[in-house]
Amino acid sequence: MIAKDMIDKLCIIGVGLIGSSLSLALKREAAVGEVIGYGRNQANLEKGLELGVLDRYETTIAAAVEGADVIVVAVPLGAMQTVFAEIAKSARNDAVITDVGSAKGSVVQAALAEFGDSVSRFVPGHPIAGGEQSGVEAGYATLYQGRRVILTPLAQTDAAASARIEAMWRRCGADIEYLDVEHHDKVLAATSHLPHMLAYALVHQLSSLNDHEEIFRYAAGGFRDFTRIASSDPVMWRDVCIANGDALVDLIEQYQHELNSIAQAIRTADADELLRLFSHAKSQRDLQIGSC
Amino acid sequence: MIAKDMIDKLCIIGVGLIGSSLSLALKREAAVGEVIGYGRNQANLEKGLELGVLDRYETTIAAAVEGADVIVVAVPLGAMQTVFAEIAKSARNDAVITDVGSAKGSVVQAALAEFGDSVSRFVPGHPIAGGEQSGVEAGYATLYQGRRVILTPLAQTDAAASARIEAMWRRCGADIEYLDVEHHDKVLAATSHLPHMLAYALVHQLSSLNDHEEIFRYAAGGFRDFTRIASSDPVMWRDVCIANGDALVDLIEQYQHELNSIAQAIRTADADELLRLFSHAKSQRDLQIGSC
Repeated sequence: MIAKDMIDKLCIIGVGLIGSSLSLALKREAAVGEVIGYGRNQANLEKGLELGVLDRYETTIAAAVEGADVIVVAVPLGAMQTVFAEIAKSARNDAVITDVGSAKGSVVQAALAEFGDSVSRFVPGHPIAGGEQSGVEAGYATLYQGRRVILTPLAQTDAAASARIEAMWRRCGADIEYLDVEHHDKVLAATSHLPHMLAYALVHQLSSLNDHEEIFRYAAGGFRDFTRIASSDPVMWRDVCIANGDALVDLIEQYQHELNSIAQAIRTADADELLRLFSHAKSQRDLQIGSC
Repeated sequence: MIAKDMIDKLCIIGVGLIGSSLSLALKREAAVGEVIGYGRNQANLEKGLELGVLDRYETTIAAAVEGADVIVVAVPLGAMQTVFAEIAKSARNDAVITDVGSAKGSVVQAALAEFGDSVSRFVPGHPIAGGEQSGVEAGYATLYQGRRVILTPLAQTDAAASARIEAMWRRCGADIEYLDVEHHDKVLAATSHLPHMLAYALVHQLSSLNDHEEIFRYAAGGFRDFTRIASSDPVMWRDVCIANGDALVDLIEQYQHELNSIAQAIRTADADELLRLFSHAKSQRDLQIGSC
């Protein structure tokens, strides 16, 4: 019997920024025994060994999950169900499984489809952390310090399984919050999925202009910050769009109305309306997010 | 006769982040004698004295510009013409005048209307620097280090006047570029004015949602970066919209098409199209701006 916040064998399926940072954080805390990796890019896994992120890697999911007490699935949303099916065949009966997907509805559906009764040991999770860098080399031990990890357990989720995953993230320095699945997906569509679409759209637009090289040359810090998320992993974001499409499309349509209002105020040189709108936005951002 | 890159009396009309940083940079370089401020907010001017940004301030533009060899106008675009009219009445015959407006077409029109033949000593300028903070306290001496300052002189601009303003900004550590007025306004509409509209629209949208406080609570670093520019000065941005409305509305309409394409790809779950679009945007941003 090991302590609730100690992991004997941790299996990470998909060793990118999120998975490798988790490993490094737990190793730093001496909260994990062996870390076993699985991924499709062998060079990345080799790098993981070199960097001390992984103690070992395997070339099949079956071999990777064998004997693991905690399994973390950190693959793009579109790959979740296939991975879950493999895990279901080979994991220990008492293994606790979690994921780190940015949308939870599709993950939960996949888990229900593949895990059967064992879904009680699956704890859907989402660390609100990350960045535009990807791959095992991007990982660092302090990524989760003071960041939120949202868990969205189901009615049938075992309380001990949730507690285990909560303890794992706490060891990484994260704050844990519980949300229900739909609520999570609605909130994240607004604060994360929509902004990514807006940034991708802007960069795509500007890079289609004839003089785009010159245009980018005059971009300053504000533009760099604004478009940073457009350097995020395209596969991950394609999958988020497919997984959380309904919530996202609703918000894009609402956003277009908002932008139309601004365009109309500019067309009619409605200075009062523009000032009202910008002042409201500024005061809300300063209030809710802080003025930096 | 003083050296080309020495200023005897510098008058700053509008003592905010841009004007006070200019003063601090020139003072650090010992490239200026006296700095005289004018502005409508007396507390801000008093603060400027305290902080050593200003050596003196005046309560009329006439008194402020008297005897100044260089006059920098750093007021919102909507206030430019009124200020120019005052300067025209009271400035020295050989004073060189510049501005720092984010759009140049409207400024040039105002200058042509107010300065008459003296427009030859007016050098339209735009430091590509700044931030969301405003007021004299936000200023710092290194703001312009390694940043671009765009000058957009007219056919009738005196070469010596341009050289004087160029030398002033170089003393602050800036790189100087020359663009024509229309070109400047088109480029800046794309890299600066449009992104500001997009950020204001997003924050305005989200803060109109019922659960906006909770939504903002789950915002992470990406959202903070993406919306930072929505904390910018509303009056300044209202004026930019009015001054550069045509270029801006064109780009907003083009952006709406771009966003429609993404929404449509999400609606139809067109994974290939989404991946193509995001990959293109990411590679362009990484290439043109750098991957951070």
